[in-house]
Amino acid sequence: MKINGRGYRTIWPDANGRTVHVIDQSQLPHAFVTRRIDSLDDAVAVISDMVVRGAPLIGVAGAYGLALAAADDPSDAAIDAAYAKLFKARPTAVNLRWALDRLRHCLLAAPPAERRALAYAQAARIADEDVTCCEAIGEHGAALIAEAAAKNPGRPVNILTHCNAGWLATVDWGTALAPIYKAARAGVAVHVFVDETRPRNQGASLTAFELLGEAISHTVIVDNAGGHLMQHGFVDLCIVGSDRTTRSGDVCNKIGTYLKALAAHDNGVPFYVALPSSTIDWRLRDGVREIPIEERDQREVTHISGRAADGSLVNVQLTPHGSSARNFGFDVTPSRLVSGLITERGVCDASESGLRGLFPELARAA
Amino acid sequence: MKINGRGYRTIWPDANGRTVHVIDQSQLPHAFVTRRIDSLDDAVAVISDMVVRGAPLIGVAGAYGLALAAADDPSDAAIDAAYAKLFKARPTAVNLRWALDRLRHCLLAAPPAERRALAYAQAARIADEDVTCCEAIGEHGAALIAEAAAKNPGRPVNILTHCNAGWLATVDWGTALAPIYKAARAGVAVHVFVDETRPRNQGASLTAFELLGEAISHTVIVDNAGGHLMQHGFVDLCIVGSDRTTRSGDVCNKIGTYLKALAAHDNGVPFYVALPSSTIDWRLRDGVREIPIEERDQREVTHISGRAADGSLVNVQLTPHGSSARNFGFDVTPSRLVSGLITERGVCDASESGLRGLFPELARAA
Repeated sequence: MKINGRGYRTIWPDANGRTVHVIDQSQLPHAFVTRRIDSLDDAVAVISDMVVRGAPLIGVAGAYGLALAAADDPSDAAIDAAYAKLFKARPTAVNLRWALDRLRHCLLAAPPAERRALAYAQAARIADEDVTCCEAIGEHGAALIAEAAAKNPGRPVNILTHCNAGWLATVDWGTALAPIYKAARAGVAVHVFVDETRPRNQGASLTAFELLGEAISHTVIVDNAGGHLMQHGFVDLCIVGSDRTTRSGDVCNKIGTYLKALAAHDNGVPFYVALPSSTIDWRLRDGVREIPIEERDQREVTHISGRAADGSLVNVQLTPHGSSARNFGFDVTPSRLVSGLITERGVCDASESGLRGLFPELARAA
Repeated sequence: MKINGRGYRTIWPDANGRTVHVIDQSQLPHAFVTRRIDSLDDAVAVISDMVVRGAPLIGVAGAYGLALAAADDPSDAAIDAAYAKLFKARPTAVNLRWALDRLRHCLLAAPPAERRALAYAQAARIADEDVTCCEAIGEHGAALIAEAAAKNPGRPVNILTHCNAGWLATVDWGTALAPIYKAARAGVAVHVFVDETRPRNQGASLTAFELLGEAISHTVIVDNAGGHLMQHGFVDLCIVGSDRTTRSGDVCNKIGTYLKALAAHDNGVPFYVALPSSTIDWRLRDGVREIPIEERDQREVTHISGRAADGSLVNVQLTPHGSSARNFGFDVTPSRLVSGLITERGVCDASESGLRGLFPELARAA
């Protein structure tokens, strides 16, 4: 997608066939900087320092890290050692493990002399598959936005989103934002209300930055504001992402998603969740009871970073000395509050039968 | 209430019979400083610069400002001029106008030689009436907390609150926090989840600061977290304040209150609103349709202030250059989501019959 008028992916190989480049997301939205990855250690660093974030992107960065290691030393031992280093960079990232397993399996089955070329080709393939999946989500979701536009000709479709489920979290297009990009490029007038998404403010920083780059009209709001907006008809539909989806259609997403789903339900506003089928955990049925919720460092609540008047990035404390905080990363929105799931194979009800209809082979295998 | 072990009101006259002191709330929670008000102009400044805030407190500060003016020049002309200056300091503050009207009316009816003493006595009386009202709210609300404690002996009552409806917004005790203080002083174990309350963060700053001073166990959370907490049984009841209440029991309070009320309703958590009867607007029935919602400067959303590592207060930008924001100050919680209204005369249903039962003379007069 576009930044300052130029098209980017979040990660791309250099023409030299070795180096890999990424957007340094730790400096967004205040500075746009790309980083060069020249070695396995560079790859470990960009993952662990959250220069790249978002499950699909972390997976691709890990795959390229393994390719860089294979370029230096294609032996089994070197590949195993690189795998272990990369996996430790973000041990809870499911996509990282999945991408590393896939690539390692493929490399170890090939003769060492072929491994370097194979590794780069496989990493590129994992990236391209992610792009294809996100584009498909975008096309299916854009049809819903076009329907909403047809109901109110002459005015933009107002869409509320939470957190950043955009292209910066993937390789390109994103999940929740992909339908918005596809609709906008198809000429549908859209306007996005962007929840700032405390405590890490991925909405106010990353989502707003993405929408600026694509020149899509948007308004940043505090997380408290969505209910009021929906009560007063400011929102036509909500689209959010999902970190984990149960087979019954419960959705685990960034903390605060549940509150917006309640407001949407109370005001008859459609509430859609965009997700690749890779987020469906077919072993789970009751999201509220069964999905463990990560509790993160309280410092994300008590402190915040932003750009001071002199342009420097400054971290400031918000709470009084002596008050502690708790910081739950996600919440679960029960399927009864979800109008539909937007997947790479189409839109379905947030229910077991809905998901099984689109992904019968996955439902059976589980 | 207590700060660093010493009892305070938010405003108090000096023993010299002229000067008035206030807590400088613009520096909380990072520095505790009091300010001396020696003149009418000082009083205007503390009101307009938001050194004092909260409707009841602004009213009392205005009354003392008029007393200071009368001490210098008790003529009708001087009192009228002071009235005009004070009123302009925060023209939308209803309590300010009410307090100024009451005091001016009283002063103009008295001989000039008696006005100075009368003004200080009346200002003190307005302050004391506010304290009495808040204490009564506290006693009635504390009974609800004690009931909740009796249901789960041996563990603290977990209370979620939003924004700051504490003693710093009044002269003493507060509204939503008064029941918590009264319960704690009566020996009931309480723990408070404090919504940070973006964009102005009155929860993370003022409410947390108040609770620290009273040594009440509390945890600051982002505004996104309350739904998750209620889904998982972390919250026994919610208590919030009200800026304006319709005769049918709809409640206009700080933006985001409605979202918490939805979560409480969805999870069977009692949701109480504490309010003095002065916030009831008997002319209104449908809060969502009839109460105009103030839209404030977008800079409160795009920027935030906090304490940097070197101790200085720094204002930082959160959003990318080019993204705009909207900033609605309040939302309306429909009475159907409110379990009860805690007033100075007792607790009633959030309904016209409930309010009329407690305040028949006010309902009739409207």
